[in-house]
Amino acid sequence: MSKVGVIMGSKSDLPIMQDAIDILKEFDIEVDVDIVSAHRTPDKLFDYGSNAHKRDISVIIAGAGGAAHLPGMVASLSPLPVIGVPVKSRNSIDGWDSVLSILQMPGGVPVATVALDGAKNAGILAAQILGSSNKNILEKIIEYKETLKTKVHESAKSL
Amino acid sequence: MSKVGVIMGSKSDLPIMQDAIDILKEFDIEVDVDIVSAHRTPDKLFDYGSNAHKRDISVIIAGAGGAAHLPGMVASLSPLPVIGVPVKSRNSIDGWDSVLSILQMPGGVPVATVALDGAKNAGILAAQILGSSNKNILEKIIEYKETLKTKVHESAKSL
Amino acid sequence: MSKVGVIMGSKSDLPIMQDAIDILKEFDIEVDVDIVSAHRTPDKLFDYGSNAHKRDISVIIAGAGGAAHLPGMVASLSPLPVIGVPVKSRNSIDGWDSVLSILQMPGGVPVATVALDGAKNAGILAAQILGSSNKNILEKIIEYKETLKTKVHESAKSL
Amino acid sequence: MSKVGVIMGSKSDLPIMQDAIDILKEFDIEVDVDIVSAHRTPDKLFDYGSNAHKRDISVIIAGAGGAAHLPGMVASLSPLPVIGVPVKSRNSIDGWDSVLSILQMPGGVPVATVALDGAKNAGILAAQILGSSNKNILEKIIEYKETLKTKVHESAKSL
Amino acid sequence: MSKVGVIMGSKSDLPIMQDAIDILKEFDIEVDVDIVSAHRTPDKLFDYGSNAHKRDISVIIAGAGGAAHLPGMVASLSPLPVIGVPVKSRNSIDGWDSVLSILQMPGGVPVATVALDGAKNAGILAAQILGSSNKNILEKIIEYKETLKTKVHESAKSL
Amino acid sequence: MSKVGVIMGSKSDLPIMQDAIDILKEFDIEVDVDIVSAHRTPDKLFDYGSNAHKRDISVIIAGAGGAAHLPGMVASLSPLPVIGVPVKSRNSIDGWDSVLSILQMPGGVPVATVALDGAKNAGILAAQILGSSNKNILEKIIEYKETLKTKVHESAKSL
Amino acid sequence: MSKVGVIMGSKSDLPIMQDAIDILKEFDIEVDVDIVSAHRTPDKLFDYGSNAHKRDISVIIAGAGGAAHLPGMVASLSPLPVIGVPVKSRNSIDGWDSVLSILQMPGGVPVATVALDGAKNAGILAAQILGSSNKNILEKIIEYKETLKTKVHESAKSL
Amino acid sequence: MSKVGVIMGSKSDLPIMQDAIDILKEFDIEVDVDIVSAHRTPDKLFDYGSNAHKRDISVIIAGAGGAAHLPGMVASLSPLPVIGVPVKSRNSIDGWDSVLSILQMPGGVPVATVALDGAKNAGILAAQILGSSNKNILEKIIEYKETLKTKVHESAKSL
Repeated sequence: MSKVGVIMGSKSDLPIMQDAIDILKEFDIEVDVDIVSAHRTPDKLFDYGSNAHKRDISVIIAGAGGAAHLPGMVASLSPLPVIGVPVKSRNSIDGWDSVLSILQMPGGVPVATVALDGAKNAGILAAQILGSSNKNILEKIIEYKETLKTKVHESAKSL
Repeated sequence: MSKVGVIMGSKSDLPIMQDAIDILKEFDIEVDVDIVSAHRTPDKLFDYGSNAHKRDISVIIAGAGGAAHLPGMVASLSPLPVIGVPVKSRNSIDGWDSVLSILQMPGGVPVATVALDGAKNAGILAAQILGSSNKNILEKIIEYKETLKTKVHESAKSL
Repeated sequence: MSKVGVIMGSKSDLPIMQDAIDILKEFDIEVDVDIVSAHRTPDKLFDYGSNAHKRDISVIIAGAGGAAHLPGMVASLSPLPVIGVPVKSRNSIDGWDSVLSILQMPGGVPVATVALDGAKNAGILAAQILGSSNKNILEKIIEYKETLKTKVHESAKSL
Repeated sequence: MSKVGVIMGSKSDLPIMQDAIDILKEFDIEVDVDIVSAHRTPDKLFDYGSNAHKRDISVIIAGAGGAAHLPGMVASLSPLPVIGVPVKSRNSIDGWDSVLSILQMPGGVPVATVALDGAKNAGILAAQILGSSNKNILEKIIEYKETLKTKVHESAKSL
Repeated sequence: MSKVGVIMGSKSDLPIMQDAIDILKEFDIEVDVDIVSAHRTPDKLFDYGSNAHKRDISVIIAGAGGAAHLPGMVASLSPLPVIGVPVKSRNSIDGWDSVLSILQMPGGVPVATVALDGAKNAGILAAQILGSSNKNILEKIIEYKETLKTKVHESAKSL
Repeated sequence: MSKVGVIMGSKSDLPIMQDAIDILKEFDIEVDVDIVSAHRTPDKLFDYGSNAHKRDISVIIAGAGGAAHLPGMVASLSPLPVIGVPVKSRNSIDGWDSVLSILQMPGGVPVATVALDGAKNAGILAAQILGSSNKNILEKIIEYKETLKTKVHESAKSL
Repeated sequence: MSKVGVIMGSKSDLPIMQDAIDILKEFDIEVDVDIVSAHRTPDKLFDYGSNAHKRDISVIIAGAGGAAHLPGMVASLSPLPVIGVPVKSRNSIDGWDSVLSILQMPGGVPVATVALDGAKNAGILAAQILGSSNKNILEKIIEYKETLKTKVHESAKSL
Repeated sequence: MSKVGVIMGSKSDLPIMQDAIDILKEFDIEVDVDIVSAHRTPDKLFDYGSNAHKRDISVIIAGAGGAAHLPGMVASLSPLPVIGVPVKSRNSIDGWDSVLSILQMPGGVPVATVALDGAKNAGILAAQILGSSNKNILEKIIEYKETLKTKVHESAKSL
């Protein structure tokens, strides 16, 4: 079965991005984690983006903060679906910079953007993408949604 | 082959959403178009969201403006990947309302958000999702990226 | 006498929403509290919204954060007045997401939006709505406004 | 039967506010229209706010633009529910000024805020408030919601 | 010599507004401090605004947070120059609500707005207004500006 | 009697700033108009700011757009009250740049900021400042406020 | 003498970027113009960024709109100073996306950002950079500043 | 060899601005540090801006917060390239005021703006400007970029 690549611009993004890794493992999906900086390792970015689809990776999740160019640049290089996670980094202007520099991609090169610091949802979205052609994963997502429902019903009872 | 469902909150969103339909047709992907209003036809929303994955639809593209609840509500009901297109509607506050009410989904229920009025990119992203498990479509995306490149090179020559 | 329904998307919203419950009890108005998540329990949302007006509820107060769809979706399902409380949740972009996804409802489906984290005012507004056809409650609101005035005069004297 | 008071800060707000008047007339609800400027006719504001509930008015709709103080000041003076319509006036900063100066009322004095230029929804909300204690109006709102639904279904068929 | 009136919407604004009082006292200008809430004591607001110019007050400084109507409403009632201090209160949306609801006054009724939490500058501005017709105060302002200059020169030397 | 100095950063600001000049003339107040660019004529700025109070000017109105430094720099040089008019110039980011670079002055150097493009209010505020020590002008302002009131009453009658 | 490289993401940016070219020609500085799209021609981007400093280019001006990655990616690849021009493109959210995705670069990789659509200033800044080590160009900039001054003085006289 | 002038509006900006000084020293570039307040020491500002290019300074870095006029005013006075650092000071509105009042300079007077609190990048940019005509410094920048790359590769290995 194919893998999900999870990359981030800096190791300081790992505490946020770990949520994506964890939920994918819950779904028994193989994850390939790496640090790729658009601005400090442009060669690695080029290599990663150009070859991910040849390395059994089916979906790429890329997280970055500030003027976040990693998701968009990987999307420019890879034919795979790229999910972008805007990270609210230390000097960010309340996260607006990360959000807008990932979301507002020009026509031709989409990035599937999730909420600010929304790495967990990035993981679920990657699973849904795999699930759209894999019954087994689709079933797991349907079950996952049931657990969400159950938790709400229980917290409602506890009122 | 499986289809892409394209829905929108109002017929007035069609001029924007047509870009998604057109690019998907360019990729020879079957499209299922409908109008589903989260706020005016909640029953249809429920029916659509609960059953799309049983109707041979693999990816859903949902476009809406203002307090745009359609993409998120469909994502709440369907196990499929949902792509949200924020539409800059007439009374929108510069599009911020559409963007934030689609992007900022809570943990557990992702929406793959594209740029404001970015329906074309939603179509390409849907194709990439299908392409992640379909060599034929993947090839078409690689070719499409080549045409983008060629156009830039030609416009550079024309300077 | 009829009740006010107070719902919220998650138990984590209760510390904010408690202000609505408390002020309604001060006005001796019966409150019906529940957790209803638009994104995790869409069936319950449908049931709640479709039937509240048959269960002796006259006004609904709905609080939610981030891409907050609960108030708008309940308003889409119920003929009752719905008051929306934007909650500044943990990953919110300074509350703008909650505010805009509750406030900017399309024509036909209003939500009576109050200030960010303004649950107390939601409770007072619900009381005013009941008071608009109930002399007894109207009197209590007039008295309540007098107590506000008195407190300001006293704090002015204490300068 | 009781009336809805519709006031606005300037006659230039009438083209927007007319939507509230029209929809209320559709529901056969009596409307009392006036121009009351918080900043240019403070005496009239005081008189209006202090006496509306004695003049058979049950709900007040107040529209204003820029630093919009009319809805909040009427709410400070009247025990009735006040619906605020932020109007995007000529020198407004994209409507943010009207929205925030109506929405962000302090604890104790709520204004039921609707979308920017959302006078139609203000009218529907006023009808819902009356409908919460009047079966006849409640029925009309349920019917109105059916017409919204029908229009969407028809536009979906026309695709 | 005439006085400066300093008012605020709530005693919780005093820690901010004290800066205005202190700097005015440094300039030996008499200050008249009071709490006047636009939303909770509208009668006092009316009385204050209508009569300040008859009570030997020459300039009014008004501070308030959130949907801050106090400065604008006093300006609507008084012929005196009114200085508005936007206060960043607890539930404020980063101060934007206070700033915009004080700054964006309609044509005819100005408020001299200073920076967010800028009470000190409000005090200096009030002194400058008195100084524009009072040589003695003008001299003090010129001296004050010299002390600002000296402090910078000293801190530059300390590098 | 003393004069009001009206300066602007560029002749292209004149259509906006004319409103200040016109209303001051209505109040029979002498106006001294000039173009002073903080960025293109810094010497003139220095000369103007340092000497205005010696040239029988009592209040300065300064209008500028974009990164608007004229009002703040004149305030740094002059002991007189300076009124800043944020002008929404061609490449401005919706006026936010002009507003914030005039409003957010540091402690010690206030600028009395009015609404975006609010030159008329700048003129009225200058008149109020003169009026705070001049009975004759104060009377004119009281009369002016009466005319505002009358116009609203007349437009209310015309409904 | 060395050249200034002017690149842009799309030919549609040329009407804005022409201002940089024109002013550089006024200063008799050689300009090398090209179209380089970060998202559509990533190979060309790599080649351009890696080799510009070997091709007698001393400063790079890069203009782009929306999620504008061109300036930052060129800065990541080149040791030369890179000036970024945020272009307010068609689907931009009022220009905020371009501004923030160019300005908010992470530590280590600066982009010298100018105002929205500020290509003329980018040209002048490039000239100033060359002028910092070239007396001849420095003299031209001093003269240019004199012409700015003269124009203001003339427009002041024409009042 | 020529120097970089580093100035700031207040000693309280030093903890931020120190990053620029430190990185310049790492590059063995001479730094000339001073405190120059646009608003409190306008004479010193004039002197500094008018004479820096005669004092062997080649590039100026200016940091300031709030309504930050220092970078723009120095740029108005000096023919040298001026780098502006927006500082997020205590009463700043999330840094937007500093960013916009430095970035949005009018045509003719550029400021090379870096990220909020981005003093380190200001230092690197100054080095790049010197490096554009100095092989020795250019080599150091190329080496510096290699160290950035190495650190990312090492942190990737540590995963």
